[in-house]
Amino acid sequence: MHYYALSVNIIRVGVLGASGYAGRTLCALIVRHPNLALAFATANEQAGEIARVAGRDITFAAADGVALDQADLVFSALPHGVSGEWVARVRAAGVRAVDLSADLRPGNGWVGFDACLGHDDIVYGLTELNRAAVAGASVVANPGCYPTSILLALAPLIERGLVAPGATIIANAASGVTGAGNAPKRELLFAEVTEDFRAYGVGNGHRHLAEMRASLATWGADVDLVFTPHLLPVARGILSTIAVPLTRPLDDVLAPWRERYAQEPFVEIADAAPALRDVVFRNTVRISATMARGTRAPMVIVTSAIDNLMKGAAGQAIQNANVMLGLDETAGLCA
Amino acid sequence: MHYYALSVNIIRVGVLGASGYAGRTLCALIVRHPNLALAFATANEQAGEIARVAGRDITFAAADGVALDQADLVFSALPHGVSGEWVARVRAAGVRAVDLSADLRPGNGWVGFDACLGHDDIVYGLTELNRAAVAGASVVANPGCYPTSILLALAPLIERGLVAPGATIIANAASGVTGAGNAPKRELLFAEVTEDFRAYGVGNGHRHLAEMRASLATWGADVDLVFTPHLLPVARGILSTIAVPLTRPLDDVLAPWRERYAQEPFVEIADAAPALRDVVFRNTVRISATMARGTRAPMVIVTSAIDNLMKGAAGQAIQNANVMLGLDETAGLCA
Amino acid sequence: MHYYALSVNIIRVGVLGASGYAGRTLCALIVRHPNLALAFATANEQAGEIARVAGRDITFAAADGVALDQADLVFSALPHGVSGEWVARVRAAGVRAVDLSADLRPGNGWVGFDACLGHDDIVYGLTELNRAAVAGASVVANPGCYPTSILLALAPLIERGLVAPGATIIANAASGVTGAGNAPKRELLFAEVTEDFRAYGVGNGHRHLAEMRASLATWGADVDLVFTPHLLPVARGILSTIAVPLTRPLDDVLAPWRERYAQEPFVEIADAAPALRDVVFRNTVRISATMARGTRAPMVIVTSAIDNLMKGAAGQAIQNANVMLGLDETAGLCA
Amino acid sequence: MHYYALSVNIIRVGVLGASGYAGRTLCALIVRHPNLALAFATANEQAGEIARVAGRDITFAAADGVALDQADLVFSALPHGVSGEWVARVRAAGVRAVDLSADLRPGNGWVGFDACLGHDDIVYGLTELNRAAVAGASVVANPGCYPTSILLALAPLIERGLVAPGATIIANAASGVTGAGNAPKRELLFAEVTEDFRAYGVGNGHRHLAEMRASLATWGADVDLVFTPHLLPVARGILSTIAVPLTRPLDDVLAPWRERYAQEPFVEIADAAPALRDVVFRNTVRISATMARGTRAPMVIVTSAIDNLMKGAAGQAIQNANVMLGLDETAGLCA
Repeated sequence: MHYYALSVNIIRVGVLGASGYAGRTLCALIVRHPNLALAFATANEQAGEIARVAGRDITFAAADGVALDQADLVFSALPHGVSGEWVARVRAAGVRAVDLSADLRPGNGWVGFDACLGHDDIVYGLTELNRAAVAGASVVANPGCYPTSILLALAPLIERGLVAPGATIIANAASGVTGAGNAPKRELLFAEVTEDFRAYGVGNGHRHLAEMRASLATWGADVDLVFTPHLLPVARGILSTIAVPLTRPLDDVLAPWRERYAQEPFVEIADAAPALRDVVFRNTVRISATMARGTRAPMVIVTSAIDNLMKGAAGQAIQNANVMLGLDETAGLCA
Repeated sequence: MHYYALSVNIIRVGVLGASGYAGRTLCALIVRHPNLALAFATANEQAGEIARVAGRDITFAAADGVALDQADLVFSALPHGVSGEWVARVRAAGVRAVDLSADLRPGNGWVGFDACLGHDDIVYGLTELNRAAVAGASVVANPGCYPTSILLALAPLIERGLVAPGATIIANAASGVTGAGNAPKRELLFAEVTEDFRAYGVGNGHRHLAEMRASLATWGADVDLVFTPHLLPVARGILSTIAVPLTRPLDDVLAPWRERYAQEPFVEIADAAPALRDVVFRNTVRISATMARGTRAPMVIVTSAIDNLMKGAAGQAIQNANVMLGLDETAGLCA
Repeated sequence: MHYYALSVNIIRVGVLGASGYAGRTLCALIVRHPNLALAFATANEQAGEIARVAGRDITFAAADGVALDQADLVFSALPHGVSGEWVARVRAAGVRAVDLSADLRPGNGWVGFDACLGHDDIVYGLTELNRAAVAGASVVANPGCYPTSILLALAPLIERGLVAPGATIIANAASGVTGAGNAPKRELLFAEVTEDFRAYGVGNGHRHLAEMRASLATWGADVDLVFTPHLLPVARGILSTIAVPLTRPLDDVLAPWRERYAQEPFVEIADAAPALRDVVFRNTVRISATMARGTRAPMVIVTSAIDNLMKGAAGQAIQNANVMLGLDETAGLCA
Repeated sequence: MHYYALSVNIIRVGVLGASGYAGRTLCALIVRHPNLALAFATANEQAGEIARVAGRDITFAAADGVALDQADLVFSALPHGVSGEWVARVRAAGVRAVDLSADLRPGNGWVGFDACLGHDDIVYGLTELNRAAVAGASVVANPGCYPTSILLALAPLIERGLVAPGATIIANAASGVTGAGNAPKRELLFAEVTEDFRAYGVGNGHRHLAEMRASLATWGADVDLVFTPHLLPVARGILSTIAVPLTRPLDDVLAPWRERYAQEPFVEIADAAPALRDVVFRNTVRISATMARGTRAPMVIVTSAIDNLMKGAAGQAIQNANVMLGLDETAGLCA
């Protein structure tokens, strides 16, 4: 017989843009969270409709009709180009915010945003790499899904000076279709995606490339990055396969990641290359690495898997909010 | 009203190892081929069983009971490690052969094969690059599926001297599960593969890497090659995404492929990155390319798609047989 | 050495509504057809665009700009509610028509259609059951996909008086998503359909039920029909599972179908229940049947599979056109 | 600020046959269960191997080496034909058991089992219909997945006398492939199942039909049951579509289920037909119903969805164990 005594502190949070895949996942995580309560969930096109989320009925509100300050923290899962302005409104109401859009991320700055908010105020929320700043932030820009997968894989190599100066890093990644949102588009129909696979934005089209290059520049990394995303016939998950030229071969190839992330609850280092199956529905990045054999210059192949809706969006947003609110960082997020 | 007169010359061919995915596809192509007739189809475990292939009933024979010389040409779709020896028997019977296994491919030589056959006799059947030699060959080693996709994509760059000396080429590729054969394995069960994606053989495990490196060496290319294959939740198709450091940027990025393959019936050069959807059930490789923007050193991203069972196996085997037999190269293969 | 002499008669046909799944399949079948040439293919929203179909570039025209009488026969794959009126225009131009929409099918009559065309003129194109009438028809209403699968399965039992009078036939069927068309709808997105399965239109919502009941009434069958369609996570194919109360047990359960369809090139009777895999990309219905054991009243379970885009739409439309034009019924349709 | 005081009673349980899909799901549910601890998990072929389950490492034991009485309750997820004997050993050790195999279910009795155990001792664990008996049982036969879905759907109609006497109930059901287990079989390979759908065991082949007929007989229902299972290209989930002839039309068609299951935490009654999406990963059966329109005799179409590994296997096993052990029935099972 064991006895526990729990003191539970409930904090009210709101969700703007709750009807998309990330917004719904956020609502589900909040409903199940031991310390958070859902103050409002907006979805303008479905305002008044009731959605069943994690066994609870949620009524979508119109964003304009919501008192933003009834929440202690607001998540915005609004579309790129719309979200930034709403975060400014949240700030004007004196409320802290986590923005899941690209609007406030490095390399993707919303034009004119400086005027109403100022960039100093915004912290890039790759939690494992920026925890202290997140804790004190009034606004967190939640990272993109691809950058989360790739930057967490690269950081230990760059921090240790293991990447060859002037090197070109080749990052290939493949994402499930929830990464493209739930707006109806012909090319995302089941009959178009099943049994198919394709690259998109080849060369440099993707906004996530700018986000990653900006982060690498912040880190002072003297590298080029080439990024090619692909669309997978799966609902969720991202797998990145990254070739990195090194200054020297690694004898214990996993050591950089094991050491850097030893204390991290949401990072797993694995002997074998991770699969989507290992991470879906979890707020976890799973990383492995192998030296390419038979090449003259040392090259490591790093593989990194996340659930794009969890660690790549809503899960990391909750993780950031936990840090901002002084909660246990893992609260509501089974590792 | 139009009139045609046709003279059709029927050639008898046999298939060893007809019950796997490649073997069955071969049989179907032969049944529909205007100039070929199926003399025998062996499958030891299913000997005596009847299979319905392309609207025709085929009775599988035991290999040991077949008179190999009743065919003018024999295809072997037997497993790696078994096929080479059977090709030697076919040659001993005075019959020409196309071997779909890895046994006779460059970089994968079957130990002890020299003694009974001699390597001089064996031509690597990447048809577009080796047509004249294929025409006169007594034995053709049909290329692996990944090498077909990747080597056809690389050849125009290397032939024109566009690849930076000493460069490392990073080739990522993803294949449908028929590439792994139809032997029952737990990791290939539907419930294990659906909604999953993973890399395998990371570093250098795959026999196809040796095959590609051997070809690059034959071409005199001063390059390293890193190759990472992935398993897709689709039945068929391979997409390769290849980053190649160049000596100079390409203004007309597709020109090398358009010029090299201008007369090729089974190569398509496309403005946009190809998808599996473009090539499945076709004996076609579809290639596109884009310069990576924003990198200091010029880098081209080449994308290349094939059907692993067609251009990557049975289709290319028929293409090679057509060349060997003096038939129209496209006979029985709708482009 | 064999010699053939062929005399090929080329007939010009047009396609209205060529950009949907059925329209594109029609165009592909026409391009490959030995006796048909594509006079025009309309798609108002994509007018002027070029589509690659069966290795040929097709330019979509706007329907209003097309001279309908440049074709000897016109297929309409326009949406329900629009198609009927265009068929009337085709008839006004003195051209024969095959309508793939529901507008002219029994039980789905377009209100006001009588005025401009008259129902006597319209033949229901379930080819195997109505071949003579199809041959002389000026307008053929091509059957719905579910009715094709189910009515061909039921006809031999009803014709032989084997169905118990007053019986209720329970037809369950499941279709791939191409059956729902390619208009972008959220519920048809890959992420919504993958790993899902559901019934829809339960009770009587589906227009195909009216079509089937009208046919059964025409046949004089004293039966009730209950029909429940389901949505499968596959691109194409329909499987129907039909429970039919009989007047007596069948000793040779497949005899009714084997006898009725002995001469039919597009009907296969199989010992084992058919799978989608047996029929996709083919203009074939595959039927099996088994007596339910352990029930007091004799009940047969009939299973029937088709490709909804082939025998369920475009393939049967070509089959009907072949009959109307006096061509070999199988021309352009590999069985 | 809220305060809770919890008293947690930990009970030790074992799992026999822990490496299959049901066994692994059981282990995961036990690991996360607030009141259960995993005493042992056996898997003879993987004895000594470590599996990662719900964030915990589990070492598989050989069954013969395990002291069964270290557990207060043992789950057997061993194969049919093997499980029953092991349950007898568990009982001989004085330990209660939940058997997930078919061996002890009605209509599937293990020959010779009476001798060592006696049928009186065995309770059929369809929890909602048999809760009191389950509470006192020493052995619970956990129902099959199809019977769970279908019997829970039928019970309210039969209990209320709404089914027409002598009626034939037509139950069609479709299951994800985890229902067929994880032993490697060619017909379950991804490449064989994707884009396919088929019926199997048509007529009466399935052992679950005997189980359902035995239950209906126990209930005194004067009905025939015809059951046709199908294999879906999804990993998990069962949807049943059941046509039931009634004595009279139902005005409020959902009333029988709403009333019968008003207090049930794991039964949902829905206005619209359920989808697999509504129930996967949940221990819930979701039921809807609609009167078929246009038939002379009243017929209701009942649709019922479960997750075959949860409510259809491991989830219901935990639910039964909760009842047997006097725990909250929902413990460890988020509804």
